[in-house]
Amino acid sequence: MTEVHAVTTRMQRESGILYHFRDHLPLTDRTPMLSLHEGGTPLVHAPRLAAWVGVPELYLKYEGLNPTGSFKDRGMVLAVARAVEDGARAVLCASTGNTAASAAAYAAHAGIRSIVLLPAGRVAAGKLAQAVIYGADVVTVDGSFDHALALALNASRKFDLALVNSVNPARIEGQTTAAYEICDALGDAPPVLALPVGNGGNITAYWLGFRRALEHGRATRLPRILGVQAEGAAPFVHGAPVEHPDTVATAIRIGRPATWEPAIRAAQDSGGAFRAVSDEAILEAYRAIAAHEGIFCEPASAASVAGLRAAVRAGAIDAAQQCVCILTGSGLKDPDTAVANVEIGAPIDMNDVEYIGRLI
Amino acid sequence: MTEVHAVTTRMQRESGILYHFRDHLPLTDRTPMLSLHEGGTPLVHAPRLAAWVGVPELYLKYEGLNPTGSFKDRGMVLAVARAVEDGARAVLCASTGNTAASAAAYAAHAGIRSIVLLPAGRVAAGKLAQAVIYGADVVTVDGSFDHALALALNASRKFDLALVNSVNPARIEGQTTAAYEICDALGDAPPVLALPVGNGGNITAYWLGFRRALEHGRATRLPRILGVQAEGAAPFVHGAPVEHPDTVATAIRIGRPATWEPAIRAAQDSGGAFRAVSDEAILEAYRAIAAHEGIFCEPASAASVAGLRAAVRAGAIDAAQQCVCILTGSGLKDPDTAVANVEIGAPIDMNDVEYIGRLI
Repeated sequence: MTEVHAVTTRMQRESGILYHFRDHLPLTDRTPMLSLHEGGTPLVHAPRLAAWVGVPELYLKYEGLNPTGSFKDRGMVLAVARAVEDGARAVLCASTGNTAASAAAYAAHAGIRSIVLLPAGRVAAGKLAQAVIYGADVVTVDGSFDHALALALNASRKFDLALVNSVNPARIEGQTTAAYEICDALGDAPPVLALPVGNGGNITAYWLGFRRALEHGRATRLPRILGVQAEGAAPFVHGAPVEHPDTVATAIRIGRPATWEPAIRAAQDSGGAFRAVSDEAILEAYRAIAAHEGIFCEPASAASVAGLRAAVRAGAIDAAQQCVCILTGSGLKDPDTAVANVEIGAPIDMNDVEYIGRLI
Repeated sequence: MTEVHAVTTRMQRESGILYHFRDHLPLTDRTPMLSLHEGGTPLVHAPRLAAWVGVPELYLKYEGLNPTGSFKDRGMVLAVARAVEDGARAVLCASTGNTAASAAAYAAHAGIRSIVLLPAGRVAAGKLAQAVIYGADVVTVDGSFDHALALALNASRKFDLALVNSVNPARIEGQTTAAYEICDALGDAPPVLALPVGNGGNITAYWLGFRRALEHGRATRLPRILGVQAEGAAPFVHGAPVEHPDTVATAIRIGRPATWEPAIRAAQDSGGAFRAVSDEAILEAYRAIAAHEGIFCEPASAASVAGLRAAVRAGAIDAAQQCVCILTGSGLKDPDTAVANVEIGAPIDMNDVEYIGRLI
């Protein structure tokens, strides 16, 4: 039994991004090596979707297979570990849903409390379910995500709570690991990377990660980064905050991004750009990703594919290149969007075998 | 560019269970090596939940991180690959939801059609959303899962469609891979394995997998297998079919299991047993798994933990042993169950920082 214990302890210790990327993350001897086995997500080859987008080679980094179903877990495991190291009793965040789910899960795993502030009536069903079941104190705020974030900032200062929104530098550090994984899987950085942009943290993290990958010899080049926003919530495209952000892509329904300058530099310095796409284009891409490749992402994730397709069609990027699109979260977070406008026929009789024949 | 292509092609080829377990699966030279990067799911160390259950060491095999959010992907990738190899234009299945989602995803990835038969009004929201978005022909049947399965069997014979329910031997073969992964992670088979039992296929696959692991030297012993059913749908516990199966755990709401004898032998030959738990106990375990360990599984999955806890309390198993519980699917499949009976307070004012202070 002792031998088995030794093996399992090592297995446990060696899972997740804190262990796997320990030489690249700001850890100390006292940082608890938390893990829900985050990271190591698939980079799926997508030949049929590539044809639909109009590029020769396309990969989808499916972050929906992180433990709570979104990329947020990469930064949250580090942010919560640092909070525990600093003696925090509770973590606090504002969220459109994914951050809340991740904060609540890692707080539960670490044995500390979590308080999450959600904009009332604007959080997808699956994300609310996650925060509730992981045992967070769920508080809805009469306002947008931007209002909830302002309240979280105030409360964290006033009551000395560990704020785990992406203004927490540990979040960005943890999220750099996805860039390393892409370089390791492809053997280099891809020429083009497209990703959805809401609060500005993730594009900042990818650009930082790719620059470090270049420094460390994990890559020989840097990608041009295409940051994609929804038309109704496109402050980076307009160059100014949006007062009443609105889009079906709830995860990027953000008008006042918390990370502004570094996000703009990521697009500019990489030779990339920001681009806005309509909700219609987002939902078209959302269905195409599932139907062509068998991957179900949340609507915000599909913005990356919609934006890349629009950029290719507009001649805004050289299409003859290998491209990677980031799918930030699982479609199961928001099942209502998938079944909206779909008619399921009336139930058939249990003996009606001919009905099946007529479908073929 | 050529070099990058070579690397990416290898990366793609080497992902997923068909490649990883190619020496242990019934593949031919013509079997397409389909992959959505299924398998390789986390075995999470769960010390706080272990205390709640009453065992010294507990691991959770979290199958919810498979590509479509359930263990079904392990068998489905092989079943669909074999269907493609045999020239099938479409796959067909009856399902409580998880099988349909998996069949639809792999059919989409392989570029063939899928037809899924669901019992009307008895499928969790996320699973219906998946089947729809992956592009399956979704047919609801006026009856239970058992009626839908009987119809699928008839239709597959009459119209020469590839039936991908667990009566398809490829499904069981693919699902054996989870047992190999547990042995590889722990260094041996665990003394006790608990899992939910519905249609009887998965317990059959685990027992087959562990016996092969012993033959191949991946393990030095075999686990005792505890098969857990819901009280309202417990044909294996009663030793007879249940006419009107009913439980909150929709994934195991099955009264006439398609795999009967091999499932009974798995429990008996392993020195294990079947056990029924109430819906109340299932939901209690469902909340405990999330709150203690930060893992959100679907209600049916929690039956494994509820059953193990009940067996320990009843003195039915020696509690002083390392145990593994199988969590078969993601909680995001069924968000409605998580938020049922939870009251979220009215939205607070966006400036009410004192409200946060009172929570602490």
